[in-house]
Amino acid sequence: MPTPARQARTMPNSAAAVIAELEGLFGRRLATDAAAREAHGRDESYHPVLPPDAVVFAESTEEVAAVVRICAAHGVPVVPFGVGTSLEGGVGALTGGISLDLSGMNRVVRLSVPDLDCTVEAGVTRKQLNAHLRDTGLFFPIDPGADATIGGMAATRASGTNAVRYGTMRDAVLGLTAVMADGRIVKTGTRARKSSAGYDLTRLLVGSEGTLGIITEVTLRLHGVPEAMSAAVCAFPDIAAAVDTVIETIQMGVPVARIELLDEVEMDAVNRYSKLDYPVQPTLFFEFHGSQASVAEQAETVAELAADHGGADFQWATLPEERSRLWQARHDAYYAAIALRPGCKGMPTDVCVPISKLAECVVETKRDLVESNLLGPLVGHVGDGNFHLCLVVDIADPDEVERAEALHARMVHRALAAGGTCTGEHGVGYGKLGFMETEHGEGLAVMRAIKRALDPQNILNPGKVVRI
Amino acid sequence: MPTPARQARTMPNSAAAVIAELEGLFGRRLATDAAAREAHGRDESYHPVLPPDAVVFAESTEEVAAVVRICAAHGVPVVPFGVGTSLEGGVGALTGGISLDLSGMNRVVRLSVPDLDCTVEAGVTRKQLNAHLRDTGLFFPIDPGADATIGGMAATRASGTNAVRYGTMRDAVLGLTAVMADGRIVKTGTRARKSSAGYDLTRLLVGSEGTLGIITEVTLRLHGVPEAMSAAVCAFPDIAAAVDTVIETIQMGVPVARIELLDEVEMDAVNRYSKLDYPVQPTLFFEFHGSQASVAEQAETVAELAADHGGADFQWATLPEERSRLWQARHDAYYAAIALRPGCKGMPTDVCVPISKLAECVVETKRDLVESNLLGPLVGHVGDGNFHLCLVVDIADPDEVERAEALHARMVHRALAAGGTCTGEHGVGYGKLGFMETEHGEGLAVMRAIKRALDPQNILNPGKVVRI
Repeated sequence: MPTPARQARTMPNSAAAVIAELEGLFGRRLATDAAAREAHGRDESYHPVLPPDAVVFAESTEEVAAVVRICAAHGVPVVPFGVGTSLEGGVGALTGGISLDLSGMNRVVRLSVPDLDCTVEAGVTRKQLNAHLRDTGLFFPIDPGADATIGGMAATRASGTNAVRYGTMRDAVLGLTAVMADGRIVKTGTRARKSSAGYDLTRLLVGSEGTLGIITEVTLRLHGVPEAMSAAVCAFPDIAAAVDTVIETIQMGVPVARIELLDEVEMDAVNRYSKLDYPVQPTLFFEFHGSQASVAEQAETVAELAADHGGADFQWATLPEERSRLWQARHDAYYAAIALRPGCKGMPTDVCVPISKLAECVVETKRDLVESNLLGPLVGHVGDGNFHLCLVVDIADPDEVERAEALHARMVHRALAAGGTCTGEHGVGYGKLGFMETEHGEGLAVMRAIKRALDPQNILNPGKVVRI
Repeated sequence: MPTPARQARTMPNSAAAVIAELEGLFGRRLATDAAAREAHGRDESYHPVLPPDAVVFAESTEEVAAVVRICAAHGVPVVPFGVGTSLEGGVGALTGGISLDLSGMNRVVRLSVPDLDCTVEAGVTRKQLNAHLRDTGLFFPIDPGADATIGGMAATRASGTNAVRYGTMRDAVLGLTAVMADGRIVKTGTRARKSSAGYDLTRLLVGSEGTLGIITEVTLRLHGVPEAMSAAVCAFPDIAAAVDTVIETIQMGVPVARIELLDEVEMDAVNRYSKLDYPVQPTLFFEFHGSQASVAEQAETVAELAADHGGADFQWATLPEERSRLWQARHDAYYAAIALRPGCKGMPTDVCVPISKLAECVVETKRDLVESNLLGPLVGHVGDGNFHLCLVVDIADPDEVERAEALHARMVHRALAAGGTCTGEHGVGYGKLGFMETEHGEGLAVMRAIKRALDPQNILNPGKVVRI
């Protein structure tokens, strides 16, 4: 996880030429001031700000294509930007160029209630979409915590708390509109639920982080709002007991919508941040969706499994406001963690392992944390085997940063040794580039061949996902 | 859907050189006799036999890599072969070369019951896998009807009757081992349930029909055998009533495991073929999986919806042998259809549309069938919007073949106009090449760029999926 020093760059002539051309087309929707550039070179993590040379606020796929064509003519990088909630440096302009801000492309283009699908522009956020869907009986389940854009979520193959039941962006995206490196506009997929018609370009672009094409529209699969929803919280004597409860729940095929683990450090942080009084113990948060009968059945099954593992005081909440309060605590986990040490930054980690290895990986990671003398609350979408340490790091202390990076690397290698991945949902950006070789081996050469074939000049978000 | 005339080819010197080299390595596991070659150039459809120059029976990934390296050195095509159940000419050796028979690679490499996953060699068939899983409490749900190999199912992105609940091979495959065009062995994916670590090579290879790499091992997601399963059959006054029942079932979020439609022509065929006495009316077959309570709840909900649409005599079956008898009828549908006209061949069609367009597409297709004076029972995995006509065609009658092909083309264009796809699950092979441009537009150029980047000599199953 090498953190590039903020580069003292002078703008190349080619970028100046691009900016001159873009000015004619975009007028006041082109920004070159320091504030706009800084804002577009920053994500939500500890990664340094890497500002682009200019920012364009695009309002249509055709405008995105025009920007890419101009950049391609001059060999200047284009970095797509949604609302800047990425965590691995995905929006940093490593070699300058144009930041393409898509937040103004925020129209819901089409909604079909009978087909449970819709098409949205890339800049629509998940909360905006769910507000739009209110009263239709449908919802969009994928919830990474942050109110990210749908385009950004597709680009990083995001997931979050509901993935154990509803899948990730890989599953939610039926098709895309994307602008390729030569400015060509491609529509992938169809509105059919399945297809065997050729290479899965949709899935190739999902998770490609803007390095193969710039996603401008997304066709999404939606779900019916369940007849009943209930949430539950349960504290455990230790983390292994909590994880074992999760494993048995999944193995029994209970169709839980969410199973989230917060360790005792995170519970303490959440209590302080959100003024709550949960027991300071490893805790599971559950959510059940289905018919009234099914939800009750699921909760009873899980309560029994939890009790078998020493889970105490299994609390249910069916009222919407109670459920919201409970999930707000979970959603604030990242900010609550950072608030533990004012002035410090979050260094989020993100591994995913086969569920049989989860307890072992979590316990070893927590031991390593103590031995490394670092603060890092643990949260996990444990139904998927996905967990995070939110390392809270004093960026001004090089020794602490070094210890944090070393701990992170050990955590990743532990996950890879267990048959897992270096990132379950945050993406590679440039923060995880160093782990790609170990995870993919010869597959990385295949990824590079695809990148070279589709972006021969390496202008689309260069320096991310694969190093050319 | 141009059907290439069986080519009178003389074997090029390069193929002869490859065969000479392979003989040294494979001995009796290399076949050049007419019977073996014919058997490996034939699929289950009306497509003509297109025999390869030789067949190699490989027993390991390393052997596959050796064959590909030798073929690459001489620029000779390699066509992977499982058990020959494809339907769009996927195994035909359009330009000769080596058929790589993977049916001997039939070991279950690894099974993890706690993780609900396993790794199998490409030649394991789905029935073999389910026999292996017996007594573990797990099963592999994807069921395209034929007892295809897992490698072949992955390569064509197969699905079938259970996809409405359990997804397709796109969802079932966690990772792959594949041999690329230069003989390099690549492992894609991990055993983690989700990942954001780079380009989704797994999904790129799934559905690529052996044109980007030869799949030799597959890591699969498995599912717990549900506590309860029940099946139901219900006849409807007309096809629109049946389809409307399906649409409402999906919209209500009933988690049905299977919903199959057979039209009155197919019901007659099935009655004759399997000696049954179902009403000769459009009929839905359902299967429900879950807890005892959930299965009963699902069946009651669907029975009510069916009754609202004039569905009569909703019959349940919970005993395994009853369910098997019922599903056997469904599985025999293709063979039952062909048996209606002895001496004729099946020309299966396969479109998939948004469910709101399903009734309209089905009704128009059936009208077209009558006007075209053709026999073609209709079956559909209608929960996904996927349906087939099994055209039963006298291949010796050029006028009938022409009418069938014209009908097929209209059926596809109707599906594309409705936002659907030219193939829901059968794949492209060479039978559907002619529709790719209309379906994908500029996306086809992207597919070609990927094919050229990963197989620059065009030796991997050439002439399928994309024309170079």
